[in-house]
Amino acid sequence: MDNFLPPGAQGNDFALLLPRHFREDVVRFLEQDMPSFDVGAFVVGTKPVKAHLLAKTPGILAGMPFFNAVFEELGCEVRWFVTEGCRLDLSPVAEAAAQGGPPPEGDFDATTSHFIGKMKIAEVTGPVCRLLQGERTALNIISRCSGIATQTNRLVAIKQEHGWHGEIAATRKVTPGFRLFEKYAVVVGGGVPHRMTLSDMTMLKDNHCWACGGDIQAMVRKARSACGFSNKIEVECQSLAEAVEAATAGAEVVMLDNFPAPEAKTAAAKLKEQFPHGLTVEISGGLNEETAAEYFSEHVDVLSFGSLTHGYDVLDFSLKVMG
Amino acid sequence: MDNFLPPGAQGNDFALLLPRHFREDVVRFLEQDMPSFDVGAFVVGTKPVKAHLLAKTPGILAGMPFFNAVFEELGCEVRWFVTEGCRLDLSPVAEAAAQGGPPPEGDFDATTSHFIGKMKIAEVTGPVCRLLQGERTALNIISRCSGIATQTNRLVAIKQEHGWHGEIAATRKVTPGFRLFEKYAVVVGGGVPHRMTLSDMTMLKDNHCWACGGDIQAMVRKARSACGFSNKIEVECQSLAEAVEAATAGAEVVMLDNFPAPEAKTAAAKLKEQFPHGLTVEISGGLNEETAAEYFSEHVDVLSFGSLTHGYDVLDFSLKVMG
Amino acid sequence: MDNFLPPGAQGNDFALLLPRHFREDVVRFLEQDMPSFDVGAFVVGTKPVKAHLLAKTPGILAGMPFFNAVFEELGCEVRWFVTEGCRLDLSPVAEAAAQGGPPPEGDFDATTSHFIGKMKIAEVTGPVCRLLQGERTALNIISRCSGIATQTNRLVAIKQEHGWHGEIAATRKVTPGFRLFEKYAVVVGGGVPHRMTLSDMTMLKDNHCWACGGDIQAMVRKARSACGFSNKIEVECQSLAEAVEAATAGAEVVMLDNFPAPEAKTAAAKLKEQFPHGLTVEISGGLNEETAAEYFSEHVDVLSFGSLTHGYDVLDFSLKVMG
Amino acid sequence: MDNFLPPGAQGNDFALLLPRHFREDVVRFLEQDMPSFDVGAFVVGTKPVKAHLLAKTPGILAGMPFFNAVFEELGCEVRWFVTEGCRLDLSPVAEAAAQGGPPPEGDFDATTSHFIGKMKIAEVTGPVCRLLQGERTALNIISRCSGIATQTNRLVAIKQEHGWHGEIAATRKVTPGFRLFEKYAVVVGGGVPHRMTLSDMTMLKDNHCWACGGDIQAMVRKARSACGFSNKIEVECQSLAEAVEAATAGAEVVMLDNFPAPEAKTAAAKLKEQFPHGLTVEISGGLNEETAAEYFSEHVDVLSFGSLTHGYDVLDFSLKVMG
Amino acid sequence: MDNFLPPGAQGNDFALLLPRHFREDVVRFLEQDMPSFDVGAFVVGTKPVKAHLLAKTPGILAGMPFFNAVFEELGCEVRWFVTEGCRLDLSPVAEAAAQGGPPPEGDFDATTSHFIGKMKIAEVTGPVCRLLQGERTALNIISRCSGIATQTNRLVAIKQEHGWHGEIAATRKVTPGFRLFEKYAVVVGGGVPHRMTLSDMTMLKDNHCWACGGDIQAMVRKARSACGFSNKIEVECQSLAEAVEAATAGAEVVMLDNFPAPEAKTAAAKLKEQFPHGLTVEISGGLNEETAAEYFSEHVDVLSFGSLTHGYDVLDFSLKVMG
Amino acid sequence: MDNFLPPGAQGNDFALLLPRHFREDVVRFLEQDMPSFDVGAFVVGTKPVKAHLLAKTPGILAGMPFFNAVFEELGCEVRWFVTEGCRLDLSPVAEAAAQGGPPPEGDFDATTSHFIGKMKIAEVTGPVCRLLQGERTALNIISRCSGIATQTNRLVAIKQEHGWHGEIAATRKVTPGFRLFEKYAVVVGGGVPHRMTLSDMTMLKDNHCWACGGDIQAMVRKARSACGFSNKIEVECQSLAEAVEAATAGAEVVMLDNFPAPEAKTAAAKLKEQFPHGLTVEISGGLNEETAAEYFSEHVDVLSFGSLTHGYDVLDFSLKVMG
Repeated sequence: MDNFLPPGAQGNDFALLLPRHFREDVVRFLEQDMPSFDVGAFVVGTKPVKAHLLAKTPGILAGMPFFNAVFEELGCEVRWFVTEGCRLDLSPVAEAAAQGGPPPEGDFDATTSHFIGKMKIAEVTGPVCRLLQGERTALNIISRCSGIATQTNRLVAIKQEHGWHGEIAATRKVTPGFRLFEKYAVVVGGGVPHRMTLSDMTMLKDNHCWACGGDIQAMVRKARSACGFSNKIEVECQSLAEAVEAATAGAEVVMLDNFPAPEAKTAAAKLKEQFPHGLTVEISGGLNEETAAEYFSEHVDVLSFGSLTHGYDVLDFSLKVMG
Repeated sequence: MDNFLPPGAQGNDFALLLPRHFREDVVRFLEQDMPSFDVGAFVVGTKPVKAHLLAKTPGILAGMPFFNAVFEELGCEVRWFVTEGCRLDLSPVAEAAAQGGPPPEGDFDATTSHFIGKMKIAEVTGPVCRLLQGERTALNIISRCSGIATQTNRLVAIKQEHGWHGEIAATRKVTPGFRLFEKYAVVVGGGVPHRMTLSDMTMLKDNHCWACGGDIQAMVRKARSACGFSNKIEVECQSLAEAVEAATAGAEVVMLDNFPAPEAKTAAAKLKEQFPHGLTVEISGGLNEETAAEYFSEHVDVLSFGSLTHGYDVLDFSLKVMG
Repeated sequence: MDNFLPPGAQGNDFALLLPRHFREDVVRFLEQDMPSFDVGAFVVGTKPVKAHLLAKTPGILAGMPFFNAVFEELGCEVRWFVTEGCRLDLSPVAEAAAQGGPPPEGDFDATTSHFIGKMKIAEVTGPVCRLLQGERTALNIISRCSGIATQTNRLVAIKQEHGWHGEIAATRKVTPGFRLFEKYAVVVGGGVPHRMTLSDMTMLKDNHCWACGGDIQAMVRKARSACGFSNKIEVECQSLAEAVEAATAGAEVVMLDNFPAPEAKTAAAKLKEQFPHGLTVEISGGLNEETAAEYFSEHVDVLSFGSLTHGYDVLDFSLKVMG
Repeated sequence: MDNFLPPGAQGNDFALLLPRHFREDVVRFLEQDMPSFDVGAFVVGTKPVKAHLLAKTPGILAGMPFFNAVFEELGCEVRWFVTEGCRLDLSPVAEAAAQGGPPPEGDFDATTSHFIGKMKIAEVTGPVCRLLQGERTALNIISRCSGIATQTNRLVAIKQEHGWHGEIAATRKVTPGFRLFEKYAVVVGGGVPHRMTLSDMTMLKDNHCWACGGDIQAMVRKARSACGFSNKIEVECQSLAEAVEAATAGAEVVMLDNFPAPEAKTAAAKLKEQFPHGLTVEISGGLNEETAAEYFSEHVDVLSFGSLTHGYDVLDFSLKVMG
Repeated sequence: MDNFLPPGAQGNDFALLLPRHFREDVVRFLEQDMPSFDVGAFVVGTKPVKAHLLAKTPGILAGMPFFNAVFEELGCEVRWFVTEGCRLDLSPVAEAAAQGGPPPEGDFDATTSHFIGKMKIAEVTGPVCRLLQGERTALNIISRCSGIATQTNRLVAIKQEHGWHGEIAATRKVTPGFRLFEKYAVVVGGGVPHRMTLSDMTMLKDNHCWACGGDIQAMVRKARSACGFSNKIEVECQSLAEAVEAATAGAEVVMLDNFPAPEAKTAAAKLKEQFPHGLTVEISGGLNEETAAEYFSEHVDVLSFGSLTHGYDVLDFSLKVMG
Repeated sequence: MDNFLPPGAQGNDFALLLPRHFREDVVRFLEQDMPSFDVGAFVVGTKPVKAHLLAKTPGILAGMPFFNAVFEELGCEVRWFVTEGCRLDLSPVAEAAAQGGPPPEGDFDATTSHFIGKMKIAEVTGPVCRLLQGERTALNIISRCSGIATQTNRLVAIKQEHGWHGEIAATRKVTPGFRLFEKYAVVVGGGVPHRMTLSDMTMLKDNHCWACGGDIQAMVRKARSACGFSNKIEVECQSLAEAVEAATAGAEVVMLDNFPAPEAKTAAAKLKEQFPHGLTVEISGGLNEETAAEYFSEHVDVLSFGSLTHGYDVLDFSLKVMG
């Protein structure tokens, strides 16, 4: 199944990016799901069982480190048949079904029609009570991460088709408390996270500019005096003139906000002519899969999409205890 | 705007349901968004400003207590022009625009076309640096809560059209760490939260049953010995026979899992004939807005929808600093 | 010693009920007991030793998972000779002493009179400094849990003597911060925990009723609109009339508050006649071991006792380092 | 009611002893009591009400700062008619009832027989939903603290009758997680807390001594090398010889463990003869209200009682919403 | 005293940089200083008092927001006579003393020689018990912050004397748990914080390079694929060749590690010739106040000093209760 | 290298003093250093490597348990060639260099001049990404702890040269959040920690005395009534008369504050004459390595130095990945 890897994922160990405290989030998720007793666990006991993780919708898998963490915290073990960032392609199963032949071996249990159209991508083993305690939380996480990675990867594929050099970026429109998981999924999908928090790259938006009396240069200089050389400064601009002013003042990134595609590309070209080195041009506002390609240009470096982490679809998985 | 209240919302103070620790979640959200310095705050300073909260897509508003908490924690004040659970109807704005007349007074600033199609539903006042620190987190929360409430309310409306007596319920398919906010939004939308956690109503699913060797009665009795009278027991059933067994053993709720609509209604009728008092019949699996009405029946008490909190759309809001 | 198991305990693994965060409580207990240095540990060093856990008063043992957790956190190991919920019967030791013969083998060290009347129920092994750090906390927990289980079990025994079908329940009169441990001990003793928190079964007491203007039906309906089908609603009633009203409105449980025994039984009978299915009748107020049996009736389902977790006696244990 | 103050309490502000984090304990208690929704609060709303705190059993009141903190956290206000450490004497109420006269004014509502034998000691005002959320937790705390203070004060009274100079001390046999509240209550009752934790006074018990090969002097010297002059060292001794050795090595306190009263007093006298200055003699083991006085002696400085915080009785209070 | 402001500090509100959780650090500091009782508070009571904060050594003041937070948490109020980042110049006091005249008015109490050489810079008012609880923690913080700001400012002064354009930067050699306070103090002193954590600017050091088989270009590209455009990448270089390779691969910053001054300046010049825009050159290793100026050059942008936060001197302050 | 052990360190396991929560501090330090992603870890991967810990400045090593904890938390292993509290003597390396001969075997890699003057004291092995994540935090801790231990040990050496019997003590002038590490380092260096917090020994300073109207005896008695026999009471005294009063009232320790050496020794002698047993005399204020010996006297028991933990120098270490 390794041939399903999306562009860039092959051989990458995305989990290395993660801070150790993601595990504390996982523990909190589990604890919030069980504030006092679990009578179900008392009923089923500790018999060791195996369960299959089944993919039910196609897309890009993301969230393996979180899925693993849920079950490790509960004393269960996970064995994966796929890798993080791989493409879940359910068509072989569908084809086989269409041809009336048996579904491909190994991917699912041929003895039961329940599994038609599903694909076994991992096995979880452990005491039945623990496995059932982790099931919902683990599925909730990978469904969401995979949904985000899938959507990101569609945009990356469009970019690659067009041979555009730039980056597909997320925004700070994240689910509070779930940001780390969502930003991580963007990276697995082939995008870039954009700034994680207010403490990363300094973004000065129209409201900041207005509060500084419209003096973009003074604003950028004041920001630099506090953050120094190690953080980038980005200025959200409503016009080319503003962008020129920002770049002149030392902003490393200018964001053209809600520019129609032609105007965006023209402005970007002019900026790159004037600032040929060290300036990044980002476009944001109202972008989607249909319109993205209109903004591709050698002078545009970044397109950012709120929808990657805001109102996103999920992928469907299930965990089936096999005994 | 109070005439926009959805069924049930009028006069309810949903915020009273909330545990005090939701505020700790809000604080954590803010802190995760700013692990070290906010250079933007240093740049803009503490000048007092006012901002308008603008609704940009129609639907049911939910999340006011969380929005308030974000800004209270930051020393800002929120003044609302609408109430929790109200329907945001943007048609008057659209109509006015269509007729070439001025937009309705008060709802938006008529002097700028930027606001066409937006509706001012609240004002936030406070130091500009604090207001900008809370903006994204506050919007992220109400966008999601309102999306959930809107979707829930569409199902409630269908139910009311058909005069069905039962409940529209959520599931445990929630965003980890954001469960409380999502379940709350379901209630604001007119639905019921279903069990919040594994420690509430004991649900015994097919995996539990299998682990108990298929003896549903023994399983229910063992559960009762631990939880006693104060918690309900629900059994997920694959057949009418299983449901009868569960109800006989004392389960207060039976869930018919993935039953087609006719079979579901027939089974429910038979169950209610045999257990006329104190038994709740829930249907779950593959339900959506299109198919929900097929399951309405006087013998069905609950329809539960994973999609309420799993892969949901968001409503669009923005916060505009006015000076 | 397995023949000492109380009714219901045989073969049950009560520890499965517990949420993982009980271990965090245990860690906090240990940390509160040692805010900075432990000079005693520095003095005794890390020599491996074995200690005997001795039972010094008869009763029902409860708290094994907590005792284990204390020592696991400290790198020590516990080996038990008894099971959770077993009856600690010291009479064989006393008899042997009375007859002038040697005490039963294995239960204690016959070479020293200090151990007369004590029974070895577990061995703890580990570095002496760690073992002494856990000693007091571990003993403090099982003393209290066992005291509660013992008292609960006396009531369960009375119930069984009389062949009553109902449940012996605890209340929310718990030691703040120690609730989980106390409610767990009630279950080990053969009782039921009653609701754990305000977020479980909704209880509407006289004060709630008063605040709703005395309209019990409206009150129950409003509660149901928020909690839905998955939580029970209980109404505390001062009269049969109130109980009828509550049950009519859909309350699953009515509690007859401070009713003298005859009135309680009469009211219960009338309620069961009118609501033969799905209604639970609880009696509370002023119950104790002497008066409990007066309330036994086929129409009474639950007796609840504040004293189970409020002002309870403890069992006496000691940990003796053996070298 | 100030004339009910126990010895030592007059004018003391015991609350000043408390660390600020006791309030975090209180918050945790409240949160553990409400992990998700409180449907009862949703039902009753926010109407402002007043409630009476009624004393139902005589004794020493303790726990006011905790009771206050519970309600302050919930936005309610408490007005006390008594002071911390005061004696709750219900006899005037009983006398009045016996003589058929009206109960003393102000202490209770004479219009209802429910209040006979109760005494109003405080008023709580606030939104009804908040007041009911705090009720049980607040009562659970003062019931326990007052029970401990009452029992401690009975021992202090015995000591004062006999004119003994020494101290009535608690031990480390506390309820895990509730230690601070229990030790505080001991002080309010007129006792002393003894060491709070393993990090306070270094206590070297028989197990420590054994682990050091029985060389008490080496053991004390090693302890001193780590703790220095600022902490006391106490040695638990099984004989006078051991106590002499400990005192010689610089222990500031010796504890005579399980000595019968005559032997204890003789040993204490000999110790004080040999070490007339700077040595404290503590007696512990098997002490109770009946036997305490047998140990009083000018050479004994401290009697410590595990029972003060281990298996203690509670005082009975109730909170009655008055509208 | 405003004329003592260091370069850059005038009118800046450095406190705006700080994340809200610095207050949680302050609370933890206070709680760690008082795990159980404060007998001293019990002794002194709650009498309101005023205390003078006295500067005893000259330098740059830093840490006002933390000092304020300590006392706000304790219910005390602070009134400052100086501003954050001001220069504390004790020479007027010393001069006055030398000339035998009275010390300058207002700065200290002339009636007592104890104050000679001290300067009153703030007043704290509040209950005496609270004020004494906060004293040591508040002083511990401003002593350290002011020490750091003073040292940083000496380097900034040297830079200004020489008219160098670059930045004086700190490193990640901070006191664990106190990083935020120390980095903040660097900014107050006129320096820049450099990256706060591993999650800010990506720094690839010799060890990273070695682990990547020495392929600097591949290393930088892999880093960029994960962090995207919003974070800078810095490469620590042992030679000009490495620096060229890093800049070619897109690193925004190159750090010349332990280069002697002449070699450093030559390398920087060559780099700026080849990469005239958007490349930052940092020098690090063995820099101190004596040698810093040797590295000043138009082609060097940053000098970083571990000593700013590692083994730094403190300023001396005291808090004197005045009654 | 064991022959480098300072007085008292031989064979001591100082780590036994530490409370388990020091590990939580270490975890927090690591997490504060990596709030979101570590791109560097993603770049270098998980290849197992070995690194040498090199000592670069002479002194006393302290902090091994913390260094170990950092790397254990990250899944790395540490193998030490030295023991806690040992003296790091770099002279053999220097001598060898001076004589032109090869440096002593094993202590460093002779093939590269970079290592001249460094000494290998431990090896760390583990995945390269984890090792680099812990490097800075681990070094930051042992640099500081070793700096403190070194300074403390210099004072202990002076004391031993003069044959003084007393103790070298730290104060509460610690880095907030780092106290435990600093006090521990004082003990490793041969000093004593003095009180850790306000909850240990009660210290009554001039401000306390003033707040009590100057009545030292009443003040000490009130303190005793709350803390009882188990805590010491110390009184800071401005005169011999005050010290006599304090000792008379039962204070176990008197501190002579800012007494010149001759006056201090005279006062101490008079105090010991009047209170020959059980009184400890401490001197504090303005002490340093130059003046300490002037205060040595058989009647002085403790000298305390703020400088041990306030503005201290650090030792220099580095971690060098060897492949």
